[in-house]
Amino acid sequence: MEREMTMTGALPGGFEWGAVKAGIKASGNLDVAVARATGVAQAAAMYTTNQVVAAPVTVGRRHMTTTGGRVGVVLVNAGNANCATGQAGIDGCEKTCVAAAETFGCIFDEVFPSSTGIIGVPFPGEKVIAALPKLKEEIGSTAEHAETFAKAIMTTDTRMKVARASVAVDGKEVRIFGAAKGAGMIHPRLGAPVAPHATMLVYLFTDIDATSAELRELLPAAAERSFNSISIDGDTSTNDTVLLLASGASGVKLDAKATPQLRESFAHALDLVCRKLAYAIVDDGEGVTHVVTLHITGARNEREAKQIAKSIAHSPLVKTAWSSADPNWGRLMAAAGYSGVEFDPARVTVRIGAEPVYEAGMRAEKFDELRAHEVMKQRDYTITMDMGQGKAECLFVTCDMTEEYVRINADYST
Amino acid sequence: MEREMTMTGALPGGFEWGAVKAGIKASGNLDVAVARATGVAQAAAMYTTNQVVAAPVTVGRRHMTTTGGRVGVVLVNAGNANCATGQAGIDGCEKTCVAAAETFGCIFDEVFPSSTGIIGVPFPGEKVIAALPKLKEEIGSTAEHAETFAKAIMTTDTRMKVARASVAVDGKEVRIFGAAKGAGMIHPRLGAPVAPHATMLVYLFTDIDATSAELRELLPAAAERSFNSISIDGDTSTNDTVLLLASGASGVKLDAKATPQLRESFAHALDLVCRKLAYAIVDDGEGVTHVVTLHITGARNEREAKQIAKSIAHSPLVKTAWSSADPNWGRLMAAAGYSGVEFDPARVTVRIGAEPVYEAGMRAEKFDELRAHEVMKQRDYTITMDMGQGKAECLFVTCDMTEEYVRINADYST
Repeated sequence: MEREMTMTGALPGGFEWGAVKAGIKASGNLDVAVARATGVAQAAAMYTTNQVVAAPVTVGRRHMTTTGGRVGVVLVNAGNANCATGQAGIDGCEKTCVAAAETFGCIFDEVFPSSTGIIGVPFPGEKVIAALPKLKEEIGSTAEHAETFAKAIMTTDTRMKVARASVAVDGKEVRIFGAAKGAGMIHPRLGAPVAPHATMLVYLFTDIDATSAELRELLPAAAERSFNSISIDGDTSTNDTVLLLASGASGVKLDAKATPQLRESFAHALDLVCRKLAYAIVDDGEGVTHVVTLHITGARNEREAKQIAKSIAHSPLVKTAWSSADPNWGRLMAAAGYSGVEFDPARVTVRIGAEPVYEAGMRAEKFDELRAHEVMKQRDYTITMDMGQGKAECLFVTCDMTEEYVRINADYST
Repeated sequence: MEREMTMTGALPGGFEWGAVKAGIKASGNLDVAVARATGVAQAAAMYTTNQVVAAPVTVGRRHMTTTGGRVGVVLVNAGNANCATGQAGIDGCEKTCVAAAETFGCIFDEVFPSSTGIIGVPFPGEKVIAALPKLKEEIGSTAEHAETFAKAIMTTDTRMKVARASVAVDGKEVRIFGAAKGAGMIHPRLGAPVAPHATMLVYLFTDIDATSAELRELLPAAAERSFNSISIDGDTSTNDTVLLLASGASGVKLDAKATPQLRESFAHALDLVCRKLAYAIVDDGEGVTHVVTLHITGARNEREAKQIAKSIAHSPLVKTAWSSADPNWGRLMAAAGYSGVEFDPARVTVRIGAEPVYEAGMRAEKFDELRAHEVMKQRDYTITMDMGQGKAECLFVTCDMTEEYVRINADYST
């Protein structure tokens, strides 16, 4: 997959984007972003399942319930997570929503707030509010505007993460544009369209004409196979949010009964955008030098396949071995072994790329350490583990753990 | 706690120890150790709960079942885990047991084998067998002999881990001596006296007169509060084993009905030895610069308290923050939040040492970052998290994650 993500193709109609520098990020970079539906968008959201959630997650969830899934303005700040900030954090978040509603001309509950950054530092809501007039001047519907949005939501990310797809229907086109941020504290476990906690923020914009209920049906499956199938460090954030907005500007109705084919094509396109963004998040992970796709096959069910993948993806011993391209399959097997899933090690086979490494309870006969090492020297490769138990499988994208990861996260300068 | 562990006080009677260099460790150090009961010892064992277990675990478990918990000889090699070695690994292990039984004059099933070292490399049983005659000459019952045993079982350990305790009863003395190894792949999850997998090996010798059944009653509680309450990297090994042997040489009977007081004192002494060894394992963890005791209080039950402790202890973000003495309580709260335990963040209080850091849903009013940082600069300190839900609590000992940890485990030289 390409490293640099660029914007090509047309954007979905019915949205405007913009961002300004409000002085929240210490770097002085863009830190308050807005996405505005020129009408009012139908929406579906998923949030972190962490018990500790940021104020904007509490407020955003409440707003979505009140409006039945309508969003006029998405207001995001980076540099401060507004998490563990008590009642003052909730109050501050609500004040920014009131101000944004006034500025952009929607009702208060139609403002969907998000924050990302450091936890536990008082929320500088006044900086967000002060930035709104300039933000209103800056918004627009060009690719540059959309890029500005994608850049402003970045924190430790080294590059913006965007993806697009389109579906052609009877001479009309439905478009999807997604923007995401996230580089650490990444192991999203998004709940039912009810609850995330996060350093992963994902915004999906489409101009299909769909109801909030229709979007709520589509989003969980797409999120499960993408954002819920990645892990950088196994840490599930307090602010994770995925928001899907449909403006209806294409004039194409997503009506599953009338056009099952369209629903399928649209779901496929949404999947593609989500997977691209999820992959890009791991690829830009803190200190990452190898992106490893775990393909667990032959499991009894998908849940167990994922449980095994997660156990491997969260093992520091496995992740450090990956950093030096060490085909230490013993660590892979040990991590699968303590996943909590029952299996017979003698029936398991493991391949690194196309190289056989483990079978029949021991090192594969054709195991060639140097060839396996060569595969692992690539930035991207796949490890396949067949459990020999059934037909279920999963794909899980994760990465190595490097000294650089420790350095980034141990950086403390008082 | 002191860094260097030394042998003081008398050893339990009825045992002999010894070790030799058999050429299994690349370093050429002592690598085959034996502990012999001069009579036959009664025993209880706990093993890793990993689905992938080493050959000696399979064989040892079988032997314990056959004999009903009798052990004549403990035979340990370091440098090769004899794990994922197929039927050849089982055969090799059994051959060493046959040879050890002949050498030391016990029956085959009374030999308890252990291995620790690299996974997946063919087991050099012939080296173990060739070393037995010399091993027989070397054994003895002095402190030097016991130290030799403790040193030979080391792999990446930087120092031997031993502990002793004694209980005086009616002018007689009951003694306990424990030796342990383990520095990485440490997050033991020992099952009922049935099954471990391991880079943690623990041998507990006592001269109390007890039956295997009595020992099996005592061991799980002691292991739960010690070895099952520590974690270095969250990786549960394929060979973890804890073996408790009672020679009966003291002439003091552990009979709970006759002498409930003795049982309590003995259980307490056993606890002490196990906790000292468990602490020593974390203290000698790979790349460790800080040993952190998590004291989770106010939980609804002990299981949930431990679940929260483990979630914190396994968080790379928490562990890297500890390495730089960074009082980043947001990461602590986030890790507790995704532990799977339900709680109200507004009722939680967190202290680092005696310093208040979090309360009432936000940064504690008296939080003093520099003072908290000073506490965290010590090598050993405690973090207390009160969940505000109930009266259950737990103590869990873990450590920071450093660049050195990554370096050690990423070291791959082909």
